[in-house]
Amino acid sequence: MKRVMCIPNYSEGRDLEKIEKIVECFRAKENVRLIDYQPDADHNRVVVEVIGEPSAVVKAVIESVKVAAQVIDMSTHQGAHPRMGAVDVIPFIPVTETTTAECVEYAKEVGKAIGDMGIPVYLYEDAATKPERTNLASIRKGQYEGFFDKIKDSEWKPDFGPAEMNAKSGVTAVGARFHLVAFNVNLNTPNLEVADKIAKKVRFIGGGLRFVKAIGLELKEKNQVQVSMNLVNFEKTAIYQALEMVKSEARRYGVSVANTELIGLLPLQALIDSAAYYMQIEDLKAEQVLETLLIGE
Amino acid sequence: MKRVMCIPNYSEGRDLEKIEKIVECFRAKENVRLIDYQPDADHNRVVVEVIGEPSAVVKAVIESVKVAAQVIDMSTHQGAHPRMGAVDVIPFIPVTETTTAECVEYAKEVGKAIGDMGIPVYLYEDAATKPERTNLASIRKGQYEGFFDKIKDSEWKPDFGPAEMNAKSGVTAVGARFHLVAFNVNLNTPNLEVADKIAKKVRFIGGGLRFVKAIGLELKEKNQVQVSMNLVNFEKTAIYQALEMVKSEARRYGVSVANTELIGLLPLQALIDSAAYYMQIEDLKAEQVLETLLIGE
Repeated sequence: MKRVMCIPNYSEGRDLEKIEKIVECFRAKENVRLIDYQPDADHNRVVVEVIGEPSAVVKAVIESVKVAAQVIDMSTHQGAHPRMGAVDVIPFIPVTETTTAECVEYAKEVGKAIGDMGIPVYLYEDAATKPERTNLASIRKGQYEGFFDKIKDSEWKPDFGPAEMNAKSGVTAVGARFHLVAFNVNLNTPNLEVADKIAKKVRFIGGGLRFVKAIGLELKEKNQVQVSMNLVNFEKTAIYQALEMVKSEARRYGVSVANTELIGLLPLQALIDSAAYYMQIEDLKAEQVLETLLIGE
Repeated sequence: MKRVMCIPNYSEGRDLEKIEKIVECFRAKENVRLIDYQPDADHNRVVVEVIGEPSAVVKAVIESVKVAAQVIDMSTHQGAHPRMGAVDVIPFIPVTETTTAECVEYAKEVGKAIGDMGIPVYLYEDAATKPERTNLASIRKGQYEGFFDKIKDSEWKPDFGPAEMNAKSGVTAVGARFHLVAFNVNLNTPNLEVADKIAKKVRFIGGGLRFVKAIGLELKEKNQVQVSMNLVNFEKTAIYQALEMVKSEARRYGVSVANTELIGLLPLQALIDSAAYYMQIEDLKAEQVLETLLIGE
């Protein structure tokens, strides 16, 4: 069976009633499985994970964008995570019997439908139409507030929808990519500057690890800061490498790791690679994990 | 579907032709899935893992015992792992829709059939008929060589089969138990005494961890020694606890860990518990591992 994963991010992490309205679009839909959703009050954002047959997922995602456009007003939005739209980003990821190339087609289908709602859309990652739109952070630079000007620049003409800002819904990025591991390291300090400096050393653009994107965030509720990372190719840059590099940089500030978080879904191999490193396990294979023997029986 | 796991251990880890004859009993059998088999030359032992519908597994196991009784001669057997029979031990483990109590019944069925072949059988763990037969190590004490006398003791009258030693095939233990994690820690020293001393401190009977069994073994090929452990309840005594205790004891001898081995199958939760410890991951759930979403679809 063809299966695709979709992980839309909505800019609402506090109002549970609004969050439920959005999530409802993925419930009780044939061939769509709502895996999880994790509202984050600090980020003021909810990350929804669905797996299913591609056309069914595409339909449900479009429905959820309509709901988000109704219930979220970006003109009053505040949150620790960078954002530019009510539906901030919609990545499609291949799971079984699908390729990233097919996911690009699903992204375009969803992008066109969102454009038709009057919301500017940028295609990103493997769906990008220009090299400078590959990186989501480049698209999102300036965030919601900056897009009122940015969208007027001919370089930033949207791939779908009007070439003018939608004040209520902002703009949305839709893309296709390999499985991403979202890994946060929380530090025992309230000093955001420390998290920022560490993030800059760990990430690719700062001279750090090839497949790591990172930003520093404040966690006011916890009186901590966070190095929030996306590992965009866990096969080549493993979770443990990112963690060890954060620890190594944190030592120069006398700061320790409070704990870490793996957000959303994680391919088993990503867990194995890091467990094997810390425990010095030789030749641990995914097929040794009992649960893998029961897949697709 | 009812599924049981069976992990018979045969005392042949060097002659691949003999090993293949044994393993063949589990190939191309309806409702029996040969998962893996790992011949170990040092141990002179092969551990076979099968999962399947209980009655089909029982039938295939009995067939394999007949083959092992033909091709293995215990009177000439040597190997680093303690052993008492050509088929040393046959544990049944519940996987889906079965209980340990049902596994006790499968163990008895197999035990009776082996007894009928003229091989003495001891039921162990949850299938044990006396408290002193619960622990496999107590049954196996004295090993093959010691059983010529041990079997004459009325305390050690077999549960099935003749009350006299089978010189060619030895004796066999058949049992039912919870999933066991086989975890070996290889040490950068050829000194067996160090592995022995560490094993004694780490294991339950020596005052160590509640659900750890451990022995010291020599790995002559590698010029190393091994603390070979069975974790009989990974939910209560985690892999990382065993590893950290081995490391802690090894420090007093100035010995380091060369690497570790996880033998055979491992429930995902056992891996998660230890990865979460080393990476300080908060609230990592098995359902976050992508592969678990595809089970039984």
